[in-house]
Amino acid sequence: MTTMTRYEQPGIDEENGGTPPGKVYLVGAGPGDPDLITRKALRCLRMADVVLYDRLASPLLLEETRAGAVRVFVGKMPRRHAMEQEDINRMLVTYARQGCTVVRLKGGDPFLFGRGGEEAQALAEAGIPFEVVPGVSAAIAVPAYAGIPVTHRDYASSVTIVTGREGAQGAPGINWEALAALGGTLVVLMGVAALPDFTRRLIAGGLDPATPAAVIQEGTTRRQRSVAGTLADIAARAADAGLTAPATTVIGQVVAMGNVLAWYNSVVPSLHGAISHS
Amino acid sequence: MTTMTRYEQPGIDEENGGTPPGKVYLVGAGPGDPDLITRKALRCLRMADVVLYDRLASPLLLEETRAGAVRVFVGKMPRRHAMEQEDINRMLVTYARQGCTVVRLKGGDPFLFGRGGEEAQALAEAGIPFEVVPGVSAAIAVPAYAGIPVTHRDYASSVTIVTGREGAQGAPGINWEALAALGGTLVVLMGVAALPDFTRRLIAGGLDPATPAAVIQEGTTRRQRSVAGTLADIAARAADAGLTAPATTVIGQVVAMGNVLAWYNSVVPSLHGAISHS
Repeated sequence: MTTMTRYEQPGIDEENGGTPPGKVYLVGAGPGDPDLITRKALRCLRMADVVLYDRLASPLLLEETRAGAVRVFVGKMPRRHAMEQEDINRMLVTYARQGCTVVRLKGGDPFLFGRGGEEAQALAEAGIPFEVVPGVSAAIAVPAYAGIPVTHRDYASSVTIVTGREGAQGAPGINWEALAALGGTLVVLMGVAALPDFTRRLIAGGLDPATPAAVIQEGTTRRQRSVAGTLADIAARAADAGLTAPATTVIGQVVAMGNVLAWYNSVVPSLHGAISHS
Repeated sequence: MTTMTRYEQPGIDEENGGTPPGKVYLVGAGPGDPDLITRKALRCLRMADVVLYDRLASPLLLEETRAGAVRVFVGKMPRRHAMEQEDINRMLVTYARQGCTVVRLKGGDPFLFGRGGEEAQALAEAGIPFEVVPGVSAAIAVPAYAGIPVTHRDYASSVTIVTGREGAQGAPGINWEALAALGGTLVVLMGVAALPDFTRRLIAGGLDPATPAAVIQEGTTRRQRSVAGTLADIAARAADAGLTAPATTVIGQVVAMGNVLAWYNSVVPSLHGAISHS
């Protein structure tokens, strides 16, 4: 399952320059719960010759691939560097040029912090046909599994989604002060390490330190754990509870609804399931 | 299919106060393409005794319900008032108290401008068990079908989702000036009528009038049509092209990528499919 197969496709002649190119599907696997995959994504997985996947996708989904399909892990492995994005782009193009039907399976949605845009660009530049199969995003589903609606008629008329790994990714900086002024709901993906930093910046930007906040680890899975508090104390609470990546942070008045709407805890009873408020 | 059945469930005795309550599933149907429904949502539809649906959900999905299931249209009908949210909440509770398995099927995601939060509150208050089944949101999928990734490492490290019907919904107001300062990508759902108004407010708030913008009507369906331009001229262009609701507006540097990544047009060739740039 974690074989690092590269550029090998049994039964296809690599020298066959006359083969019409295959097609690449940039597929969102959903947020973790394998039942949140779409019907179209499942169909793509079942017809794929090659699946390139990373760590966030549920391993159960790989069982949907047909016998003989090549599965290539392209995510980050412990104590190793992640594969470079350029290498992944090149693999997609190479497999497609061999005539393969290729699925690039990503956690969540491919175009929301999934770097699917870069992969689509590489495919377009190489003249490879592709389709995008949007997925259920963790940004909305993880709060939902903690009983938190990201918008609510009475409490939030906007939701902003950012990543807490902005610096590491070399992306344009986030204007935390403007976010503080905007209000509404803020969802920070992959930001548990940066929690002390960005909560401080939001408070400095004028957001009320008493604004409800929650951190949800491994949301939508049976291992889901969450902690709730305020913008002022959520970083300390998450650290006290030992929450680690992958985790999603939600900040805004809607977080208070998680108290009464925590439906997932009754579906999957767990010692760690409940949002702990104190 | 559009029967306005209310509070009637064949074979179940309404007077049977001893029946244990059924369960309500608040289900996202996805953005329009019926293949973007999740595996869990399909399973819910197939086991439902009662399905309450609105107009945005693809009619094809109703064919997944079993024979004998009661289908209740609760959306807005032409020239009629929409059913009040309180009436829908009451129907959910009533059917569940009769012991029914109830699906509340909504376009997109139930917790992102879907008023699912209010329905969940009503169910929690009535002591009815419920689950939330997140769906693929139009906010991300509709841009994707127009070739626009809502985030991109080089162009946008945040995406904010708002509704253009803020006033009509009585929601807290949107701080368009803060949105202008934030940058990143802005997605406005259901905002085609308010386009002239909010584009003016964004420009007044300091957002560059040359910022790329697109309006996509009936995105992810075969009737998808879109127009691209800039923040300054998108309202006029959308009006010239006769774009109407349901439509999604995207504003930000990522919109320019729709030029090269418009994959959906090659999948569903259409006179109206291409983003028109001039």
